[in-house]
Amino acid sequence: MKVSDIGEQGLLKILQRFCPSEIIGDDGAVLNVDRDRNLVVTTDVLVDNIHFSEITTSPEDAGWRAVAANLSDIAAMGASPLGITVGLALPIDTQVDWVERLYQGMSECLQKYNTPIVGGDLVRSHITTISITAFGQVYPNRCIRRHTAKIGDAIVVTGIHGASRAGLELLLNPELGETINEADKQALILAHQRPQPRLDVLPILWDVSPDSEFTVSGMDSSDGLADAVLQICRASNVGAVLELQKLEWQKILVSEALKNWLTPTQILEYTLYGGEDFELVLCLPSELAEIFVKKIGDNAAIIGKITSNPQVILRDQINKNPDQVLTLNQGFQHFNNS
Amino acid sequence: MKVSDIGEQGLLKILQRFCPSEIIGDDGAVLNVDRDRNLVVTTDVLVDNIHFSEITTSPEDAGWRAVAANLSDIAAMGASPLGITVGLALPIDTQVDWVERLYQGMSECLQKYNTPIVGGDLVRSHITTISITAFGQVYPNRCIRRHTAKIGDAIVVTGIHGASRAGLELLLNPELGETINEADKQALILAHQRPQPRLDVLPILWDVSPDSEFTVSGMDSSDGLADAVLQICRASNVGAVLELQKLEWQKILVSEALKNWLTPTQILEYTLYGGEDFELVLCLPSELAEIFVKKIGDNAAIIGKITSNPQVILRDQINKNPDQVLTLNQGFQHFNNS
Repeated sequence: MKVSDIGEQGLLKILQRFCPSEIIGDDGAVLNVDRDRNLVVTTDVLVDNIHFSEITTSPEDAGWRAVAANLSDIAAMGASPLGITVGLALPIDTQVDWVERLYQGMSECLQKYNTPIVGGDLVRSHITTISITAFGQVYPNRCIRRHTAKIGDAIVVTGIHGASRAGLELLLNPELGETINEADKQALILAHQRPQPRLDVLPILWDVSPDSEFTVSGMDSSDGLADAVLQICRASNVGAVLELQKLEWQKILVSEALKNWLTPTQILEYTLYGGEDFELVLCLPSELAEIFVKKIGDNAAIIGKITSNPQVILRDQINKNPDQVLTLNQGFQHFNNS
Repeated sequence: MKVSDIGEQGLLKILQRFCPSEIIGDDGAVLNVDRDRNLVVTTDVLVDNIHFSEITTSPEDAGWRAVAANLSDIAAMGASPLGITVGLALPIDTQVDWVERLYQGMSECLQKYNTPIVGGDLVRSHITTISITAFGQVYPNRCIRRHTAKIGDAIVVTGIHGASRAGLELLLNPELGETINEADKQALILAHQRPQPRLDVLPILWDVSPDSEFTVSGMDSSDGLADAVLQICRASNVGAVLELQKLEWQKILVSEALKNWLTPTQILEYTLYGGEDFELVLCLPSELAEIFVKKIGDNAAIIGKITSNPQVILRDQINKNPDQVLTLNQGFQHFNNS
């Protein structure tokens, strides 16, 4: 039996037998190192021509994105980053300049969050492979996990979903951008090349109700907004209703850039399934969610709520289209009039 | 300019500009997470056909060795392991059985030290690549670093150096083992296939003088015994004298297995430059070193001392051969009569 016969998910299931079940299943692993502090660890492996490519990614951007993805996982756990390690496997004919520029990009992203590169390994290989492990710390009661969403919680998303996917499209097919003004185009491309891990959101989140204890459930949206909601619901054994018109908020923000290019349906597809926006999807009591969104300003929205019905449903309340059930394996089904 | 033009060491020097200098330079990075505890992190990348090979290494052994190398770095920092992450890049035609056996070997080594696999990543690649990051914790005053060796310190080594190298030779050239008895042969091969990280040594070390504060300097001998002494001396700005006859202790322990096969000079070469024994090389006040070695029993020895002369010298006190200066780049020069 080969890996191709059972796929990544099949192999993961087998390998999870070797890991303690209470530790895995989130964006990062949580370890109780002492009573007051949990250690959070997350790791990513990036392979040339699979996870980054010279066509769409400069070495600086590859470095930035690799770091941003890991710091986003740290943010998604509610943690503050302490450092990263970088394991680098390189062909011997790699240009030294390429490696320096990769590290330059990593450093630029890390410096924003005062996070050092604390070590690494450098080995020879035939394929450029970048392995990053990031670790952070979090107060145990502020740890954000996937399995703690509660019925009635509001679902909050930060940032613009779909922008990274649109930016990638413009990089792959520059001719598509001809009808978009330069500033909007660059904003979309930047969303893809320089995603911002949302560590900035955490102090605002805990400031919503500093004197009361409340649990926030969530994860980042690296694999798409729909995926994040589905993963949280599966882990928490709940469901969700997402309101189509609340997602429209997303469209309004990017409409100037996209209206001449994508149909409303395509924008919704990008919003739900685009991925790599590295935003946060958080579930918390609705009265706190409202304060939170107000504090953040334009850059966040309540898009739905957690329900007891175990499905994740997309509801069109204005046009009264039938509810759609979102799934992990199945893309978005087009609405009649969107 | 290509990586091949400046080599690994040249590239490392460039990349170290991106890391805080006080954190790097040891077997693991040390991070002060709070007043009472330091976090230690270390990472290794292993590439198929470079760091492991089907000829000498079963998947179980590849897994064991990968974990042992990282836990050895944790031990070399004086730390207790908390967990590891595993990043795995695999060709899609990899046998699932191979991956399971790799994890089986990792788990066997980890279980001895109660250390969990806490997370990882699984990606597609054309070359099997294993990235392991291990992390542990240590009381700040018990952290073992390279740069703190003091003039007059005794140099203690644990275990048998050269055994792993001899075991590798027997795996590569089985015909060499024909004159060795089966038990000795298996012991040497096991030293190569299943090295033991010396976490067991640490409680004994701190028990030597539980009520007094003392600093231990050191590292592991993954790149050879000579390399370890040289690295410690370079980092501490000191030198060392190693006594040839103290190293003979090593020969006595393995003599039954090796006497029909290797010359005394070859055994000394393996001892100093063999590598991959994953033992510890420690520098501490000589009166404490003597107690320490007695507590450990046969399995450790004082092989020399730290000096103000910045060279690392191998001294033959019995046969009065001239002193030899050991260097990082240069192999051992044969003595006239050893």
